[in-house]
Amino acid sequence: MNPDLVHSLNSLRTLSIDMISQANSGHPGICLGAAPIIYSIYANHLKVNPVDPKWINRDRFVMSCGHGSALLYATLFMAGYDISIDDLVNFRRLGSKTPGHPEYGVTPGVEVSTGPLGQGFANAVGMAIAERYLAALFEEKIPKQKVVDYYVYCLASEGDLMEGVALEAAAVAGNLGLDRLIVLYDSNDVTLDGDLKLSSTNDDIIKKYIAMGWEVDYVQEGNDTREIDKAIVRAKYNKKPTLIEVKTVLGRGSINEGNHIVHGKPLTRDDIAQLKKKLNITTNHMEITENAVKYLRLSIANRINTPYNEWQRYFKNIKKDANAEVTKLINFIEKQDIGMTFTSKSFKIQNDYMEELRESNSKLMNIISDRTKFFLGGSADLSSSCHTNLYKEIEMSKKYPAGKNMYFGVREHAMGAILNGMALSGLRVYGSTFLVFSDYLKPAMRMSAMMELPVTYVLTHDSIGIGQDGPTHQPIEQLAMIRSIPRLVDFRPCDINEVVGCWDYIINNKRPAAIVLSKDEAHILSGTSGENTMKGAYVIRKEKEKIDAVVVATGLEVTTALLISEELKQKGIDLRIVSMPSMKLFLEQTEAYRKEIIPDGVKVITLESGSTMPWYRFTKPEYTIGVNDFGYSGTKDEVLEKMGFDYESILKRIEEIVHE
Amino acid sequence: MNPDLVHSLNSLRTLSIDMISQANSGHPGICLGAAPIIYSIYANHLKVNPVDPKWINRDRFVMSCGHGSALLYATLFMAGYDISIDDLVNFRRLGSKTPGHPEYGVTPGVEVSTGPLGQGFANAVGMAIAERYLAALFEEKIPKQKVVDYYVYCLASEGDLMEGVALEAAAVAGNLGLDRLIVLYDSNDVTLDGDLKLSSTNDDIIKKYIAMGWEVDYVQEGNDTREIDKAIVRAKYNKKPTLIEVKTVLGRGSINEGNHIVHGKPLTRDDIAQLKKKLNITTNHMEITENAVKYLRLSIANRINTPYNEWQRYFKNIKKDANAEVTKLINFIEKQDIGMTFTSKSFKIQNDYMEELRESNSKLMNIISDRTKFFLGGSADLSSSCHTNLYKEIEMSKKYPAGKNMYFGVREHAMGAILNGMALSGLRVYGSTFLVFSDYLKPAMRMSAMMELPVTYVLTHDSIGIGQDGPTHQPIEQLAMIRSIPRLVDFRPCDINEVVGCWDYIINNKRPAAIVLSKDEAHILSGTSGENTMKGAYVIRKEKEKIDAVVVATGLEVTTALLISEELKQKGIDLRIVSMPSMKLFLEQTEAYRKEIIPDGVKVITLESGSTMPWYRFTKPEYTIGVNDFGYSGTKDEVLEKMGFDYESILKRIEEIVHE
Repeated sequence: MNPDLVHSLNSLRTLSIDMISQANSGHPGICLGAAPIIYSIYANHLKVNPVDPKWINRDRFVMSCGHGSALLYATLFMAGYDISIDDLVNFRRLGSKTPGHPEYGVTPGVEVSTGPLGQGFANAVGMAIAERYLAALFEEKIPKQKVVDYYVYCLASEGDLMEGVALEAAAVAGNLGLDRLIVLYDSNDVTLDGDLKLSSTNDDIIKKYIAMGWEVDYVQEGNDTREIDKAIVRAKYNKKPTLIEVKTVLGRGSINEGNHIVHGKPLTRDDIAQLKKKLNITTNHMEITENAVKYLRLSIANRINTPYNEWQRYFKNIKKDANAEVTKLINFIEKQDIGMTFTSKSFKIQNDYMEELRESNSKLMNIISDRTKFFLGGSADLSSSCHTNLYKEIEMSKKYPAGKNMYFGVREHAMGAILNGMALSGLRVYGSTFLVFSDYLKPAMRMSAMMELPVTYVLTHDSIGIGQDGPTHQPIEQLAMIRSIPRLVDFRPCDINEVVGCWDYIINNKRPAAIVLSKDEAHILSGTSGENTMKGAYVIRKEKEKIDAVVVATGLEVTTALLISEELKQKGIDLRIVSMPSMKLFLEQTEAYRKEIIPDGVKVITLESGSTMPWYRFTKPEYTIGVNDFGYSGTKDEVLEKMGFDYESILKRIEEIVHE
Repeated sequence: MNPDLVHSLNSLRTLSIDMISQANSGHPGICLGAAPIIYSIYANHLKVNPVDPKWINRDRFVMSCGHGSALLYATLFMAGYDISIDDLVNFRRLGSKTPGHPEYGVTPGVEVSTGPLGQGFANAVGMAIAERYLAALFEEKIPKQKVVDYYVYCLASEGDLMEGVALEAAAVAGNLGLDRLIVLYDSNDVTLDGDLKLSSTNDDIIKKYIAMGWEVDYVQEGNDTREIDKAIVRAKYNKKPTLIEVKTVLGRGSINEGNHIVHGKPLTRDDIAQLKKKLNITTNHMEITENAVKYLRLSIANRINTPYNEWQRYFKNIKKDANAEVTKLINFIEKQDIGMTFTSKSFKIQNDYMEELRESNSKLMNIISDRTKFFLGGSADLSSSCHTNLYKEIEMSKKYPAGKNMYFGVREHAMGAILNGMALSGLRVYGSTFLVFSDYLKPAMRMSAMMELPVTYVLTHDSIGIGQDGPTHQPIEQLAMIRSIPRLVDFRPCDINEVVGCWDYIINNKRPAAIVLSKDEAHILSGTSGENTMKGAYVIRKEKEKIDAVVVATGLEVTTALLISEELKQKGIDLRIVSMPSMKLFLEQTEAYRKEIIPDGVKVITLESGSTMPWYRFTKPEYTIGVNDFGYSGTKDEVLEKMGFDYESILKRIEEIVHE
């Protein structure tokens, strides 16, 4: 290999090792082993402009094995992103641009937060889907367009590929034939706990990916960037997603190379000294030669300047000639403007409206879909039950990448992580399954929340009232789980007006959200409103004279609460009924508003089908009415009665509490 | 095929269809399509005695696609299990032996609760591991033993095999070469939402399983039990786990056969009429001929009587001649007696003991392991970080199935579900990962809880205090999630005494549990005790004269609370400190005890690194001190200060609350 290249590459290695040493924390093994892979990608393939890190048509790079962050930051610095040596010195320190694992929004050039294994891989699949989708939208208007035609590169470790979420996502990628997705697999036969063969003697990754509809390639000498380059070049011509297995040596050059102990602990001083000697690096700790940096920057500049400038000119011309339709597309990719309005105020629903809530939701989703191309999604094989199909749209497939109905298969976890990858491009995406199966995608939901991505989880069959499918299908603790996730907006609407409000909020606020829906019929209720829904909670039935108790309810239980309030009125009990479609949004209101809705000093009773844990915030445990054990299989009425959650039991309990 | 067999098989089909019709709920598609598979297994292969359903050495059958429950129950009835026609009539009714999805403990012959797809498959892997493990223990004492040598059969659907948990578990099964695991894959090219090709055009299951170290087989005509029989016979001789793809037609015989609409809705009356005509079934609704039943029962009896009786004789002789070591094994398989005692009282730990809690936990786990063969487990590739290796033991592998250290790879979800399968045999099993990654295995944890299996989740790195790995690795909402799961026992001990108490409880109570541990050093605290740990909470520092406030804390925060109480004492503030290592166990105490520990009418302050949601039960939100947003990457001290959870901030807040 070219000696300048070797010096530059070795400098990348030692710089990242120095960072780990400086922080006294980090993962040297991957930095030494996978450096040639990332170097090859950035130097010779990745279509990025470090001084314009948000360039619309840049290639995306995802480091799924986020524990290799030192290697990524050192690369970004050398490549010329707005990261200084000082930033590298502050690796893993608070407030730095170089946190312990890559964080979206913190570091220029970092496309997504990674760390929890498998997620990044699935995010990359989502990004590659978004690319195909947006490219297809442009191609409908501009044949052979070049506005959107980027590649998505992903570096994945052994651990990434073991995770179920990655396996699910790989199947989705194979199904959609994502030919612009190139995954490089850092194959070093070692995991944190030891030799790979402890856990995976017989797992043939290459064959597995072939079986899932991928092209595969193999680089025997992972230290040779030329071999890696060739494989990437071949990959770009494939008509399928490509997995390139690159054989590397964990911690290559360390005295412990190839041993799992080099995975996650800083190298000793002596080890670093011998490593630098071996690699011919003579600079001091946290120093790098100008030549090393220049070599990578020039490699990128020489390769990228012409195509970057050409694209800018091309895009300028496209914009100039754009008709209304194309302008919409441009507004989206430039400003993530989805080009639609949606406001609760424009909906007037008849007073006698009654419908399954999942069906009301379906109508709203279809209305939104009709108004914008940038709203799409799918289901983990439950669209027929969750009613989340977009009726005017076709299914997404390799042939029709602009299809808006996505069939993820029974792969909830990949669905969540793929949606995250898609949302990173600004697309407003949704995925549906039963509420109880939100468990399967919790790790992805957490990442939606952490990155504050506009992903909507549509979760139906939201209570023990589903009856006959029994305890495995009856959600109990899932609403508590969802509400415990920071930054995620919970919704459990009680009628169609509130469903409208949920979508008003979601469309006009780019926040991660979960809409939890009943499959039962719900009457429209007097007093509900979309606007109030967005405040999280509001009074739906005002007390007539005095407040004997405030009953706070969500979803179908609001109807129950209203009926009970009417019945108890006959007995002289005066209840205020509060509907709380979103606990998160309510808690974000002013204290004055919150006290207006739930005044101090009154008895508060809460009512929701599910764990009472979230409700202790508002009242004492004895006054929370909910379901705290697993359910039973039986008809709806049988189950509700058995769990003490039928109308009569609730009525009785409320009456008791009022009289306590 | 033999006409009697055809009649019996067709009767199974129509009986299960009648059940679904009777319940007006259920899944006819799989019943009609997969009937020959289950019929073949029960009639010709499964080594079970329906009148002795708990026979130790029975083969296990797992219906991973639990929505086929009607087919399973009808089979069990026909096979002669203690299930009557009336039980079948009550399909999906409350209190019946025939709930909507198979439930462990409810129905004789049902080995495990299934329904959430993929779980059953992974449970079957766990069962097959348990078989190899127990067989190996016997073989150490009795060469060529026949006490334990059963097969595990699993029926899996398309959806099961799509789930990441199944893919992870399949890799584990391949790694361990589980040659007594036979999975029959009901391959009908349809999922709930439509044709399989919508979501899986390129996913070649057969090739994928070969790549994971499985033997595979293929039955072209899934309606022909003879072909299925032959494939199963071949599978029994394989030296690897076997996947048999059986081509079936969803809803075969229905007017909608092959269409996804036959998946989950009862057939119409007309459809049932034409079906019965086609199948030559003339009995009325919910009736079956004696011949149909007799044919299956005789098939089983003729096949099983001799080997069953032989095994009983053999086992009797083994018992008679058993030495002490063999007796221990027998006591386990007969009574799930793990043959050890463990009591907090026997531990006396020095007053100046200080150690990382994960390391204290490691010592205890090793002590337990030394005392019993029936305690084993592993890690999702984090044993080196969680410190959960058993040091005197070797790793489990195909060659050494009695190895007690299990290397699951980075496959948390499969780990949980496999542990469930193992625990069903009475083995006391554990699995470790970081607390934050408990998200990945939540669905399995839920099943541990629902079935009340003795699985222990060891979850370390339990707070934002882990620092530099940043928000993706810092648990916030996980303790709330764990505590929201019904029946699961949460533990977050504060020192080694409490860790002893956790294990005392776990060993002496067969309940699902999660031990949440810090990786930081913890001093032994004065006043802690194993016995009190088992009460869930207790006073660790009594107020001197009056109670200015009760501070309830867990884990490392107990130390913080104690230090603060000493400091505030100087300012005349008199605090009671309560350690609450297990909220679940505390809530299970008598009201009197609970009020003794946390008296009415005193100010209660809670302190825990994580979501405050679980704590509103004990006090008002303003008095809960915790962490309710995602963390940051930085040193421990930087992060704690940034999140307002450092010593000084906590001290200040407690003082403020006391003075409020």
